[in-house]
Amino acid sequence: MMPSHLPHWLQSVFHSGAQPYVSDLYPKLGDTVTLRVRVHSDAPVRQLYLRTFPDGEQLFTRMRKAEDVPPASWWEVELEIGEPQVHYRFIMESADGVFWYTALGSAEHEPSDTTDFRIIADYEPPGWVHDAVFYQIFPDRFANGDPSTDPQPHEYDYRGMRPHTYPWGTPPPAKAWSPVNFYGGDLPGITAHLDHLTRLGVNTLYLNPIFTALSNHKYDVGDYDHVDPHFGGDQALIDLRRALTERDMRYMLDIVPNHCGYASKWFQAAQADFNAPETEFFIFHDHPDDYEAWLGVWSLPKLNYESLELRRRIYGNDDAVFRKWLKAPFSADGWRIDVANMLGRQGAVQLGVQIARDIRSAVKTARPDAYLLGENFYDAAPQLQGDQWDAVMNYYGFTHPLWFWLSHYERASYKLNGKILSDGPSTTTAMTTSWLARLASYPWQIALQQFNLLGSHDTPRIRSIVGENDALHRLATVLLFTFPGVPSVYYGDEIGLTDDDYLRSRGCMNWDEATWDGDLFAFHQQLITFRRRSKALQFGSFQLLHVDEDCVAFQREWERERVLVVANRGTESAEAIPVAHGGIPDNTVFRDFVGGQEATMSNGQLILPATGQGATLWQQIA
Amino acid sequence: MMPSHLPHWLQSVFHSGAQPYVSDLYPKLGDTVTLRVRVHSDAPVRQLYLRTFPDGEQLFTRMRKAEDVPPASWWEVELEIGEPQVHYRFIMESADGVFWYTALGSAEHEPSDTTDFRIIADYEPPGWVHDAVFYQIFPDRFANGDPSTDPQPHEYDYRGMRPHTYPWGTPPPAKAWSPVNFYGGDLPGITAHLDHLTRLGVNTLYLNPIFTALSNHKYDVGDYDHVDPHFGGDQALIDLRRALTERDMRYMLDIVPNHCGYASKWFQAAQADFNAPETEFFIFHDHPDDYEAWLGVWSLPKLNYESLELRRRIYGNDDAVFRKWLKAPFSADGWRIDVANMLGRQGAVQLGVQIARDIRSAVKTARPDAYLLGENFYDAAPQLQGDQWDAVMNYYGFTHPLWFWLSHYERASYKLNGKILSDGPSTTTAMTTSWLARLASYPWQIALQQFNLLGSHDTPRIRSIVGENDALHRLATVLLFTFPGVPSVYYGDEIGLTDDDYLRSRGCMNWDEATWDGDLFAFHQQLITFRRRSKALQFGSFQLLHVDEDCVAFQREWERERVLVVANRGTESAEAIPVAHGGIPDNTVFRDFVGGQEATMSNGQLILPATGQGATLWQQIA
Repeated sequence: MMPSHLPHWLQSVFHSGAQPYVSDLYPKLGDTVTLRVRVHSDAPVRQLYLRTFPDGEQLFTRMRKAEDVPPASWWEVELEIGEPQVHYRFIMESADGVFWYTALGSAEHEPSDTTDFRIIADYEPPGWVHDAVFYQIFPDRFANGDPSTDPQPHEYDYRGMRPHTYPWGTPPPAKAWSPVNFYGGDLPGITAHLDHLTRLGVNTLYLNPIFTALSNHKYDVGDYDHVDPHFGGDQALIDLRRALTERDMRYMLDIVPNHCGYASKWFQAAQADFNAPETEFFIFHDHPDDYEAWLGVWSLPKLNYESLELRRRIYGNDDAVFRKWLKAPFSADGWRIDVANMLGRQGAVQLGVQIARDIRSAVKTARPDAYLLGENFYDAAPQLQGDQWDAVMNYYGFTHPLWFWLSHYERASYKLNGKILSDGPSTTTAMTTSWLARLASYPWQIALQQFNLLGSHDTPRIRSIVGENDALHRLATVLLFTFPGVPSVYYGDEIGLTDDDYLRSRGCMNWDEATWDGDLFAFHQQLITFRRRSKALQFGSFQLLHVDEDCVAFQREWERERVLVVANRGTESAEAIPVAHGGIPDNTVFRDFVGGQEATMSNGQLILPATGQGATLWQQIA
Repeated sequence: MMPSHLPHWLQSVFHSGAQPYVSDLYPKLGDTVTLRVRVHSDAPVRQLYLRTFPDGEQLFTRMRKAEDVPPASWWEVELEIGEPQVHYRFIMESADGVFWYTALGSAEHEPSDTTDFRIIADYEPPGWVHDAVFYQIFPDRFANGDPSTDPQPHEYDYRGMRPHTYPWGTPPPAKAWSPVNFYGGDLPGITAHLDHLTRLGVNTLYLNPIFTALSNHKYDVGDYDHVDPHFGGDQALIDLRRALTERDMRYMLDIVPNHCGYASKWFQAAQADFNAPETEFFIFHDHPDDYEAWLGVWSLPKLNYESLELRRRIYGNDDAVFRKWLKAPFSADGWRIDVANMLGRQGAVQLGVQIARDIRSAVKTARPDAYLLGENFYDAAPQLQGDQWDAVMNYYGFTHPLWFWLSHYERASYKLNGKILSDGPSTTTAMTTSWLARLASYPWQIALQQFNLLGSHDTPRIRSIVGENDALHRLATVLLFTFPGVPSVYYGDEIGLTDDDYLRSRGCMNWDEATWDGDLFAFHQQLITFRRRSKALQFGSFQLLHVDEDCVAFQREWERERVLVVANRGTESAEAIPVAHGGIPDNTVFRDFVGGQEATMSNGQLILPATGQGATLWQQIA
């Protein structure tokens, strides 16, 4: 947030990578775009300048005042897209002094380039993603379509354990977590339940790993070239693909290029014979039993990207793993890349950037509109500049700040006994500062593709995070569908699933509709419908309008569409919030998409009906 | 600065890349260093953790409370230098919540990696630089040692103008700026005046360009392989080198690898014959007269680094320009690289990073301890991570924020008519925020090498910036010698030169000692002596202790040496400043290095004698 000693009117200065603030979201190299900045009509601004940096030299360009429609004045300037990536900021002369304006907001000191607005030339987005609403499925726990393929104890041994398939929705007799406790979910089960997804309104599946592997989560890949027979084998995926196509739906696969399972054919070959071609795929400190493994977990040997043959098999060859599954008959629409933060990184050997670029190049060659989603719980900005991933799972930029605001700070790490904990929730400012810092760290073209989620197979479920508070769960859901990026619903969140005592967030989907939270399901349906037809939510700018102890309000704008979101974690209703710096004229009328009530702008404030705890979603209607 | 709503005790949390906060400034890959964090003894801290990121995965490590010597508690932890560059931050559990601490200070939201503390493994600094005090000389204006080589009108034509040499210290008859107005300064003149430098105490020369060129500034290089005959030719440089060596002094040359002069032998060859080997050194839009030039200035054709032969001649060959001058008999100690921000950058072709890395590699091969200083007026953080320049001319990180604080904001750029101006000076916070943001953007190993200056041949002189206010000039000079980095004195600043009406900051050196400001010269001598024997100033940490409307105070620490600087631009004396969060016990006594007065810590405050406008420099004496 802006330092409190700066003049208040600076809050009204606004620009975004979105239209109408940039005339073209995807310009070509050599194009000229028009940039617009909005400032409150009463602000004591004398002159605005654009600050660019062509070929490394500072260039100031005087802007023109284009329009003055109180409460908003608009300044304009042309920007030449003269380099593969262009970055820019603004500087203002005013009666109160000279100020800068960057993607992080206003400042009185010369900013770092890292917070500049950014535009990538010739950027080709996976265009279908903006309209996508994802639905994440952990296959063993979604639906059992073919009990004949359920894993049985006699089939194999995994780290001294044998697989068991338990009755749907029951805890295992031992009441203990095990990687070989199964419930028999499979791809035919998903195919059989597509009506549920269609009814909900989602249009894209994200499947946790389905390649042959011994565990229930299948992140211990055994064979990258086949779908696990317990999930129905390759044919089941072909059938699912066909069924999805009939419904105009898409799907994304999950791949683990960082490591594989100890039982994988590659690692078995490497361990058995030092001279095997696969030996160089791994880092043996002392062959065959001392080798590098993911975070030291011996069952997950780390892959060694110094091996050119490994690169060829994973992504280089025409039939490499990354390419094969994007082609018919499987025709996946994208990849979720496990542990994308660690890929190719190993002490003195740091190949992460190189491998990510290579993978992008291979994948986009096979399928230009494939969605490349990296798993990265941390600051992923260097991977999100157009040359590596299209997106990351947006824990750092959306989910975690929201959790900490709704619950409390809680983090753990490998090698750490215990957790780092706060007594209470974060301030609203902590959340919004995190959000803005991440949004400022990549181009808007990239921000729109980030994969937003409230939880996953790796985390608690959102309903458990908020202590099963229905109002806060709905608040989080409104933010999921209105924050910049692409929303993903974790299976069962839409009917009110909470964490299971033993299976945690990986509990079995509940198919007994009579026991669902029907209102919650309908709430999801409504939001998904709204999201899928709102350009403001898919492409629009993001401006914070108000931040106080328990409440945050922001707006999204796209051309003539304006959507306001007011999220209140407290139990007292916000009555009026000052939003004049959002360029909204008095007497503008909004309707709450959820509750249907109306609210009107008066004296620069939005006068709200009593709505209590939760989030409201306001569409401008007059 | 820290947001004002955060608890006050967070100001006492401190860590730095310097000893004793890091046990080894230059660790090797695989080493383990000890990190220390200092917190006020009364701070309600429960536990500190180190947050690292080995191979891309978050790792928290619990720290131990090592020592409690009020007012300071010390926390410690080991850090393994497991990768070529390691970055880290801290997180604190406290009664007031969970907070982060990064190179930018304390925060309540999860930070970006860009503000982490950083350590480069196996880093080899140009070690002599820490003890260096540079003295910049614009050769034509320093001293005329050999009038027989003064440029004469009959010698050549430059853009329609003919060279004239005017009597020392007189304005040209036309009273107009011209690139071929000369005063006859040369290398023999410098050699003859080394006593002045020795008396002042500086030990390293920075010479503006001396290679053969037609203009007085010689940034229009004609021949990279020879010293201009008007400056005495190659032999004069050999003589200067010998004289410097006798005094245990060093020198740095200035090179222009981004462009050359239109009269250069390369460009003349290229224009004369499209098939010349040099044609590919340039970007001809239409041979021979339409070509790419620096900022469109036709007399400075831009060099084209797509040419591999150009790369070889500039830095690749064993006798390439960048290598030749570092070797005997010239044995330069480093390079100042002109327009290093634009080098190799040209629209769609962006080779800047590659060329900078190549140059570093070539230079360090020729001479491992050569100092590589880039000219870059802007945010140079990407060039300062150990793989490109050792330093930049620190306008952005030191000089400009200081100017804006002492004078007003004023910036121009090419293509902009007029200037961007503020009515008054910046706030103190604007200056300190700029300083901290830049210091946070590169490793401490690199911060210590930055080239600090108060002005140069490209800017007004500091004495003119401050309106010839002697107290403010001295204040700026104290900061020059106490801010992290290496100080450089611009010739004549030490005797009170101001901008010349016609020659601007490039006026002739005044050799009439009777007219000098002798007190100012003595003040410089004192500061240089102090700087050269103070490890705290050469290597020590930098902590802001106090910032108010007109005053800034900071401390530098190295092992048991502690130096405090209090800079007051106002005319009212600061009487007491709260500095307990600097870990300074009550009853500590300091002595002002300049005035000799004493000041004592009492109740967490430093009680100051009346010193008025200016800066004081306090050494701990008890």
